[in-house]
Amino acid sequence: MSSHGYETGRLNLPFVGIATFGKYPYQPDWDKIEADVAVLGAPFDFGTQFRAGARFGPRSIREASTLFSFGHGGAYDHEDDITYLPAETTRIVDLGDADIVHTDTAQSHANIEFGVRKILKAGAIPVVLGGDHSVNIPCINAFSEDEPVHLVQIDAHLDFVDERHGVRSGHGNPMRRAAEKDYVTGLTQIGIRNVSSTAREGYEAARSMGSDILSVRQFRKLGVEAVLDRIPAGKRYYVTIDIDGFDPSIAPGTGTPSHGGFTYYEGLELLDGLTKRGSVVGVDLVEVAPDYDHAGCTTTLAAQLLLNFIGRILHHRT
Amino acid sequence: MSSHGYETGRLNLPFVGIATFGKYPYQPDWDKIEADVAVLGAPFDFGTQFRAGARFGPRSIREASTLFSFGHGGAYDHEDDITYLPAETTRIVDLGDADIVHTDTAQSHANIEFGVRKILKAGAIPVVLGGDHSVNIPCINAFSEDEPVHLVQIDAHLDFVDERHGVRSGHGNPMRRAAEKDYVTGLTQIGIRNVSSTAREGYEAARSMGSDILSVRQFRKLGVEAVLDRIPAGKRYYVTIDIDGFDPSIAPGTGTPSHGGFTYYEGLELLDGLTKRGSVVGVDLVEVAPDYDHAGCTTTLAAQLLLNFIGRILHHRT
Amino acid sequence: MSSHGYETGRLNLPFVGIATFGKYPYQPDWDKIEADVAVLGAPFDFGTQFRAGARFGPRSIREASTLFSFGHGGAYDHEDDITYLPAETTRIVDLGDADIVHTDTAQSHANIEFGVRKILKAGAIPVVLGGDHSVNIPCINAFSEDEPVHLVQIDAHLDFVDERHGVRSGHGNPMRRAAEKDYVTGLTQIGIRNVSSTAREGYEAARSMGSDILSVRQFRKLGVEAVLDRIPAGKRYYVTIDIDGFDPSIAPGTGTPSHGGFTYYEGLELLDGLTKRGSVVGVDLVEVAPDYDHAGCTTTLAAQLLLNFIGRILHHRT
Amino acid sequence: MSSHGYETGRLNLPFVGIATFGKYPYQPDWDKIEADVAVLGAPFDFGTQFRAGARFGPRSIREASTLFSFGHGGAYDHEDDITYLPAETTRIVDLGDADIVHTDTAQSHANIEFGVRKILKAGAIPVVLGGDHSVNIPCINAFSEDEPVHLVQIDAHLDFVDERHGVRSGHGNPMRRAAEKDYVTGLTQIGIRNVSSTAREGYEAARSMGSDILSVRQFRKLGVEAVLDRIPAGKRYYVTIDIDGFDPSIAPGTGTPSHGGFTYYEGLELLDGLTKRGSVVGVDLVEVAPDYDHAGCTTTLAAQLLLNFIGRILHHRT
Amino acid sequence: MSSHGYETGRLNLPFVGIATFGKYPYQPDWDKIEADVAVLGAPFDFGTQFRAGARFGPRSIREASTLFSFGHGGAYDHEDDITYLPAETTRIVDLGDADIVHTDTAQSHANIEFGVRKILKAGAIPVVLGGDHSVNIPCINAFSEDEPVHLVQIDAHLDFVDERHGVRSGHGNPMRRAAEKDYVTGLTQIGIRNVSSTAREGYEAARSMGSDILSVRQFRKLGVEAVLDRIPAGKRYYVTIDIDGFDPSIAPGTGTPSHGGFTYYEGLELLDGLTKRGSVVGVDLVEVAPDYDHAGCTTTLAAQLLLNFIGRILHHRT
Amino acid sequence: MSSHGYETGRLNLPFVGIATFGKYPYQPDWDKIEADVAVLGAPFDFGTQFRAGARFGPRSIREASTLFSFGHGGAYDHEDDITYLPAETTRIVDLGDADIVHTDTAQSHANIEFGVRKILKAGAIPVVLGGDHSVNIPCINAFSEDEPVHLVQIDAHLDFVDERHGVRSGHGNPMRRAAEKDYVTGLTQIGIRNVSSTAREGYEAARSMGSDILSVRQFRKLGVEAVLDRIPAGKRYYVTIDIDGFDPSIAPGTGTPSHGGFTYYEGLELLDGLTKRGSVVGVDLVEVAPDYDHAGCTTTLAAQLLLNFIGRILHHRT
Repeated sequence: MSSHGYETGRLNLPFVGIATFGKYPYQPDWDKIEADVAVLGAPFDFGTQFRAGARFGPRSIREASTLFSFGHGGAYDHEDDITYLPAETTRIVDLGDADIVHTDTAQSHANIEFGVRKILKAGAIPVVLGGDHSVNIPCINAFSEDEPVHLVQIDAHLDFVDERHGVRSGHGNPMRRAAEKDYVTGLTQIGIRNVSSTAREGYEAARSMGSDILSVRQFRKLGVEAVLDRIPAGKRYYVTIDIDGFDPSIAPGTGTPSHGGFTYYEGLELLDGLTKRGSVVGVDLVEVAPDYDHAGCTTTLAAQLLLNFIGRILHHRT
Repeated sequence: MSSHGYETGRLNLPFVGIATFGKYPYQPDWDKIEADVAVLGAPFDFGTQFRAGARFGPRSIREASTLFSFGHGGAYDHEDDITYLPAETTRIVDLGDADIVHTDTAQSHANIEFGVRKILKAGAIPVVLGGDHSVNIPCINAFSEDEPVHLVQIDAHLDFVDERHGVRSGHGNPMRRAAEKDYVTGLTQIGIRNVSSTAREGYEAARSMGSDILSVRQFRKLGVEAVLDRIPAGKRYYVTIDIDGFDPSIAPGTGTPSHGGFTYYEGLELLDGLTKRGSVVGVDLVEVAPDYDHAGCTTTLAAQLLLNFIGRILHHRT
Repeated sequence: MSSHGYETGRLNLPFVGIATFGKYPYQPDWDKIEADVAVLGAPFDFGTQFRAGARFGPRSIREASTLFSFGHGGAYDHEDDITYLPAETTRIVDLGDADIVHTDTAQSHANIEFGVRKILKAGAIPVVLGGDHSVNIPCINAFSEDEPVHLVQIDAHLDFVDERHGVRSGHGNPMRRAAEKDYVTGLTQIGIRNVSSTAREGYEAARSMGSDILSVRQFRKLGVEAVLDRIPAGKRYYVTIDIDGFDPSIAPGTGTPSHGGFTYYEGLELLDGLTKRGSVVGVDLVEVAPDYDHAGCTTTLAAQLLLNFIGRILHHRT
Repeated sequence: MSSHGYETGRLNLPFVGIATFGKYPYQPDWDKIEADVAVLGAPFDFGTQFRAGARFGPRSIREASTLFSFGHGGAYDHEDDITYLPAETTRIVDLGDADIVHTDTAQSHANIEFGVRKILKAGAIPVVLGGDHSVNIPCINAFSEDEPVHLVQIDAHLDFVDERHGVRSGHGNPMRRAAEKDYVTGLTQIGIRNVSSTAREGYEAARSMGSDILSVRQFRKLGVEAVLDRIPAGKRYYVTIDIDGFDPSIAPGTGTPSHGGFTYYEGLELLDGLTKRGSVVGVDLVEVAPDYDHAGCTTTLAAQLLLNFIGRILHHRT
Repeated sequence: MSSHGYETGRLNLPFVGIATFGKYPYQPDWDKIEADVAVLGAPFDFGTQFRAGARFGPRSIREASTLFSFGHGGAYDHEDDITYLPAETTRIVDLGDADIVHTDTAQSHANIEFGVRKILKAGAIPVVLGGDHSVNIPCINAFSEDEPVHLVQIDAHLDFVDERHGVRSGHGNPMRRAAEKDYVTGLTQIGIRNVSSTAREGYEAARSMGSDILSVRQFRKLGVEAVLDRIPAGKRYYVTIDIDGFDPSIAPGTGTPSHGGFTYYEGLELLDGLTKRGSVVGVDLVEVAPDYDHAGCTTTLAAQLLLNFIGRILHHRT
Repeated sequence: MSSHGYETGRLNLPFVGIATFGKYPYQPDWDKIEADVAVLGAPFDFGTQFRAGARFGPRSIREASTLFSFGHGGAYDHEDDITYLPAETTRIVDLGDADIVHTDTAQSHANIEFGVRKILKAGAIPVVLGGDHSVNIPCINAFSEDEPVHLVQIDAHLDFVDERHGVRSGHGNPMRRAAEKDYVTGLTQIGIRNVSSTAREGYEAARSMGSDILSVRQFRKLGVEAVLDRIPAGKRYYVTIDIDGFDPSIAPGTGTPSHGGFTYYEGLELLDGLTKRGSVVGVDLVEVAPDYDHAGCTTTLAAQLLLNFIGRILHHRT
């Protein structure tokens, strides 16, 4: 939507215009996706166990992302001396949101899966905006007919609960559901810390099912390079980012904050490294709850992180 | 919990102490309910169609209600010249909340119904704190073995949708579900206004199933006495109060606000009139979402209204 | 944008999807406006004299308007027994925003005028979302080649300052600028109250230039019918709504709040009456500043009012 | 402070400059008060029984009052056709605040009394900005050597508690303390409603000590003229305004909100009537707590009310 | 309160149920304390010198602590590979709050002391939730008949003012009051930084009375182990945590924030070290003011820190 | 304003009294500046490209600065063992604000320049409180008749845009405008990071015009001493601090936040080093937007930083 022009062109300040992701074009017809990256909202939050409100995550991230649309000539990073997302060659579309049906988790999840499958069929990389972390379940489901993936998670919580009171599709379950897939070849779970919904057995199960678990402090002791070395090289990576993997000081707008999380650059350097180590084939960013984000820090973080990540994915892929 | 005493007694200011409803005693053992009124929280909000957050309704109403606990000698109303809720004879307990299972509407509703049935079995009047308006469905279900009731609703929305996309238990459906019960003898729906989730057919269905529908402006033209006259006299009333029946100026903290609602005294005088016209046998107050209630107006309204209503129910019953 | 469909149709809850006005289609090509009503954002606020932030008015009103998009079958009003905005025949488009150039009032205003002229040329009714009240100046300018209009203003302030410290295009000047046009045949200024930026001379000038000024209390004493009678019948009306004409209790999110303003129904009934008394040919709604609207009351009011007004304009015109 | 001038004069918009009350001059030397009205802050809030924060009342009211300083030529009211507060003849000073000593109620109250006595000695009318309602106690004390006064209170609460747990100088006690003075000839207590900290005995005591008590609904039934008639004519009035006498919809920023309060014009018309009925010799406005006033409605109300009241006091006195 | 059970057990999500500390049982009868740890609220804030509101600290910390109650099987920490707070053996009770008397500092402090003495008499470890830092004074007083303690303080401010304007019991005085006790054998004051209420003489007095003072930067240069080594080993420690010792980025909700504070893990590692170095015999955590904590970061920090600290105290004691 | 005294002196707590900067005296007569440091507000924000609201920066920083006025004996820093800002010898005045004319950038900037010239003429060091970063343009203009200066900038953004859509005086242009001056001998731009409004050409232009650009990560790798070494020694420094140079976790209240910014001590140590390396002859601190600063972290940071910086400037100058 940034290509609008009348006689004299437009300055197109961030606060001007319809809020699509990064002000990229809106494509409501999911049979006409022609893009390298397709953004899909998944505004589902019935899977939360504490604060709700992640249903407004997609809308709020889109709004914050407009701040990062004002480099028309692309996003120049003086530290890397690279212009990411050059206007001429960047093909990103915003598909709007999957349809959500209140009271009905199964149908809502099915609708998300439907959208991700459309993106994959079109050959684009899906970038899904949650919603709570349970939306990762249909995202991973949608990869069932693709080549195997290695899952990289940034999160405060292990999310490896099998079942509790019958619940298997809440926001505490997605990594367990993913690990059960034969096309998920392994998991790297980073940022896991403190008391969590997952008990000791969950950690044991995760490790036995192929998971490498690192806390924030362990990540810091190792350094980002050593952490990247633990991730299998040259693979297809699906990256799931729970915003609560970051510190509450920069990500207060989330449902289950946990102190002691990552800084912005720790996250960015890990994501940057992944784009150079293999192929990122899918992304979701979840648990942004704008009702608890009065200054917009969290949505700004989500938008800043995703646009930098997408820029690097597109720049470093061959 | 207001009866605590050490050597010199306690002043027990509102900001002091555990926040139960009105600082009345907490009774976690639902087989030992000995009270005239039993308060139950129903922190369920997966039935919402716009903003979530009503899951924190019960906790926030309890907190606000502590402001109205500091008349130890009861609540003296100088206009009525009556002391409501006299400490000696008032038997109110707080049962805590029904258990909620994320992602699972049916089980959550069943747990609410379980609690209300316990209260009814104990001979107490249930006062249920929502949660979204769908929690009215299990509340009404719980009356299946009691004498028939007439349902009085204060609300901006008709909530009379039969089914849409398979949803029959969301917050747009409860009045339809109630009207289907043979032990619900009629409905009076007051405050209904503006565009709503209910289409013209819903209004026709409601009227054909025994509903009397009044907007805020119609209420004002008639006056409270004439409105009361339209409600069958001498009946058992179940009263469901959607806080969005009140004006957004005093009830901003709700999911689907609708301008043009009731003032406080319009609501109070209607409720006061009901206590004199028949027997109030059950109450729910729903859709309080404290994340949108930065100054506490909405929770204060809910607490002030409920304590005044309960006081009048207990005073006027014979 | 509400017409999206995949295999099973969409429930399209308000929190789902890209936020255009009322979820109506986005038309970025202003040479292809095919609609009865065209919505244009004018996110300009350098004309404010106290709090800024009205630049986020258009975006926030769009977001709030999604709440009122969920009657797919149109907006049924049970008091009027009319279904406004029936899906089949309603042609509304959202044009996005006029381009704003920071530090440059003249260019920003010119861009707004450019957009309104495009709408008028297409034969649609412009509905402009401010921005501060100075955006009314380019809106009125754009009518220079149309038939004359009578201007109806809802506002707390007279906005009739001629010039002060060289400022002629700030938010205190628009009504003076309008009155100077020969195609503005008269003004009705309603809601004016309290201390204002306009001194006694301004009131005298306004009256001498054809203005009828009424305070909120004068409006109430007269009643809405008598007020309507003072507006010339059968004319073309341009309606400018400063949200601060409404009471701060329902419109806190504005730059210069003034206590003692209108209720929702006072405003609605006046607007409803206008649609029956003549032709509404242009509308702007200004001064919504969402940074001061923590619960969304003000944006909800703006959206609810506009959708009801547009529905009535389209229903009652012949 | 509004008289500042450099070469070209100043526009002096409300957001510009040091925030004194109404941008009137700051006079830190209390032995040099030369004014008709002297404003004194009393930022004391240890007397509150629920929410604190009224200590920031004076500072926040000053800040809001800058909005009403931009009519340099005075405040023209088109309904009254009077220019209040004409710049040439208006002598108002801001004395800053009385010194407050944390943990020490007696000393803090003494410092407030000291300031009010200085004002009275200078022949000015004291306008005291609270702080909680207990600051009325030292204000009234300061009148001990003046002619008798009749006390008019706008409030939700009777504040007539004699003593509880040893407390005699909290915000529930001031009217009792005032009634005990021989130079307080009577009280008119208006707006009193709902459950209060005062029990039935308090009401009886108040009436027996010369108080006339009216609720909001009683006020409305009588009308403002009849209410004014109940106040002894031609007397010296001390007016104490608890902001919670007004409705929470316009005054959410207060410690103990009570629904069902006054509108702005009800308050203004009562105050306006007082200025014509006798001499207002002292004013306090208390219980503004800006931490609960996110949109500034309450501070705006306080400032708007006080400036209008002061303008009328000065205009109507002979 | 987490042991509630009906037929099928409860999931007991954090947002469900009465908010006691960690959802541990409420014990209103202070003569029946049977626990290892007893939590007492001290909602007193008349000792503050800037922002008030710490009176709501206990209630808000309890509410936040419910997030950390959902590991029914205890709190498994994968970094330590320890399950803290195992459900079977953990005996924690919540006593509610000490009674507070507005305007009366001495009586309020006496009531806090009364409660702590009850806890000590019962052989439990007191964990006191402030309230402002002055509540440490009665807490330390209550240890007068116990074995001597070494006081460890985490704070931005030295709080070592002797007397100013007669104030000896405000929130700037507690460490001075403690140092005067013969049963306080020494102080370690950590985190002290920047401009403070304490002048140079205060620092000299503190050092001469046995205090070891470290700033955040000094702490960082030394490292946590070296800091622990400066604290006498094998002693009984009383730990007082002023939340403003932590950085405003994670603890904005406090009265006198000071930039440059501790991160979460710096605090946790210090506390963890203490539990291994000696016996922690008392704890208070003060100055949480939820009115400034819009996202709940501060209350979450307080709850997360306390539950981790208590878990380690109970795990490491012999 | 802190020197007020009545019979017994004043405690002068931070929440008491008129909010001038640091409670230093207000000097409205700009021809009578007798001070070492003169504080001037520049509440201009029409130059912003995203969120507005910096017009309230001066007022909000003044308010926050009162927290740091309560060391009457000066500001003792125990790490440096220095008492900064000793009461006896510190001469700081607050001049209030430059006059701002809405809609008129050129006149508003001229008024700021006028004020800074007055300060320079009086021989004082100007400390200007923004307002957006465009206010730096008139500040630098005012130095045209002084000795040359080296400009040190702390910022997330390069602000080196030459012209775009005719805009040359917005908040993206000031460093370009400064670099064009012959009396600006060089620039050191620190903290620059991420996507910015400045494209690659801007960086090249900056370097070619004498700028040294360092990101936060580059600053950290070098260390503060090495960074200081890159700044020419013994020069006159003008320091411009954009609050968004700091991390959003401590400075959320700003218009265009950028994650990954400085901590408090990184900023302070750089500023401290400058005061020892040469002469600081002018300072501005810009882009504080209190509407996004709900807990006051940002204004506290601004005030804490400025008072510490001023203290060091005055202490270390010879």
